Amino acid sequence: MTNSAQPPINAAPPAIVLVEPQLGENIGSAARVMLNFGLVDLRLVAPRDGWPNPAAETLSAGAFDAGVGVSQFDQLSDAIADRKMVFATTARPRGMQKPIFAPHQATERIRSSGQATAILFGGEKSGLSNDDIAFADGILTYAVNPSFSSLNLAQAVGVFASTWAAKSDLPLSFSEPLDPPAPRIDVIRMLEHFEKELDRAGFFFPPEKTSLMQNNLRNALIRANWTEQEVRTFRGAIKALAIGRGAARIDRDQS
Amino acid sequence: MTNSAQPPINAAPPAIVLVEPQLGENIGSAARVMLNFGLVDLRLVAPRDGWPNPAAETLSAGAFDAGVGVSQFDQLSDAIADRKMVFATTARPRGMQKPIFAPHQATERIRSSGQATAILFGGEKSGLSNDDIAFADGILTYAVNPSFSSLNLAQAVGVFASTWAAKSDLPLSFSEPLDPPAPRIDVIRMLEHFEKELDRAGFFFPPEKTSLMQNNLRNALIRANWTEQEVRTFRGAIKALAIGRGAARIDRDQS
Repeated sequence: MTNSAQPPINAAPPAIVLVEPQLGENIGSAARVMLNFGLVDLRLVAPRDGWPNPAAETLSAGAFDAGVGVSQFDQLSDAIADRKMVFATTARPRGMQKPIFAPHQATERIRSSGQATAILFGGEKSGLSNDDIAFADGILTYAVNPSFSSLNLAQAVGVFASTWAAKSDLPLSFSEPLDPPAPRIDVIRMLEHFEKELDRAGFFFPPEKTSLMQNNLRNALIRANWTEQEVRTFRGAIKALAIGRGAARIDRDQS
Repeated sequence: MTNSAQPPINAAPPAIVLVEPQLGENIGSAARVMLNFGLVDLRLVAPRDGWPNPAAETLSAGAFDAGVGVSQFDQLSDAIADRKMVFATTARPRGMQKPIFAPHQATERIRSSGQATAILFGGEKSGLSNDDIAFADGILTYAVNPSFSSLNLAQAVGVFASTWAAKSDLPLSFSEPLDPPAPRIDVIRMLEHFEKELDRAGFFFPPEKTSLMQNNLRNALIRANWTEQEVRTFRGAIKALAIGRGAARIDRDQS
């Protein structure tokens, strides 16, 4: 993590490096969740069962065809040769002189530095070795339950990947679908309509409590932030109730 | 999401509700990542293969014995009967009048309200139905890649769970292991030692560039934020180099 002369830019998505992964299923699941969150550079260091791996293909849900590139290396040093910032993921303290980063902190660091970055994940059995971690600028760790801290490898990749996407300028999967609220006058007319029919039905009793009862109803209903369509629907419902049981249907049939 | 009279408190961890999950493997993986991040209340609505499920047990890595409680329901309405706030997870817009929450926003809402909450996740095939989502106060969605948005069920649980833990007051899995930096005078003495030996070796040439060359070295080395132990180690290394090839070992052997 040197002071680069180049200005901070938006970094390319970091490479995910799996060091001596064992199960093809986990490699495939890692690729799937990488692509879910826009990461496409997967690097394998000495995968136990070689590469390609049919189990990885199955669990990837098509991620390798849809954009995740895989490269294979014999040594970690080769896998990170072109990187300028490296984080090592671990849930165990290692007594090393490395700064510690939560996922959102690492993401902010990567994005503000603009450096080509690798995130290292160890194999299923025992994670990264101290020799692996010594190559890293910092340690990435999660807020895990201390009595149950061992994450599945692909889940560990997923936690970083989702944080990367959430902290990036990527939008949520879809935008707010809310229609705008109805003009307040429409809501007030709706409430008045409701109250008029309630009054006709003898709801406000005793009369001196009318105002209190009205305000209780208004306070509750106003919180619902009605759209115009919903106001129309509710007014139809009031009307139907006011007409009486079964009569609303008859009324519509005849209209 | 009513205005409760009770003051905001730290909410208990939300319940995770899997609606019509298919694969036991995903139920087990979901339970594992729940417990990794401190969630312990798993509710299954009409799991395809019934419950208990041996495949779930295998993939749970012991999470059911270590703290995750499972309850089973025929209907979603029964599974959320005791909840006061409900979020439905989906990656697809549904055209419903529901507010949208990112995981950190949902987490903040749950924690500030202090309400018993459920997070709903749909089955592997098609996610939550619109009827399921209609029970929810809000929609939870992630910043996914629009062209590859379908998460594995357990990964979807993991993204929420890790955000819940990160936004809670839970600490990272271990605290900063850094020893304090050495007093600056120790670092300065180390630099002077280094420069003295470099000078003896004829490194500073031409002489008028000595100051520039020294400052280049000092700027680089000072960034490393040396601890006392590291200062001692580096001074030993300078000494060894100054003594000359092989001689350091001989010197130590004789001392």
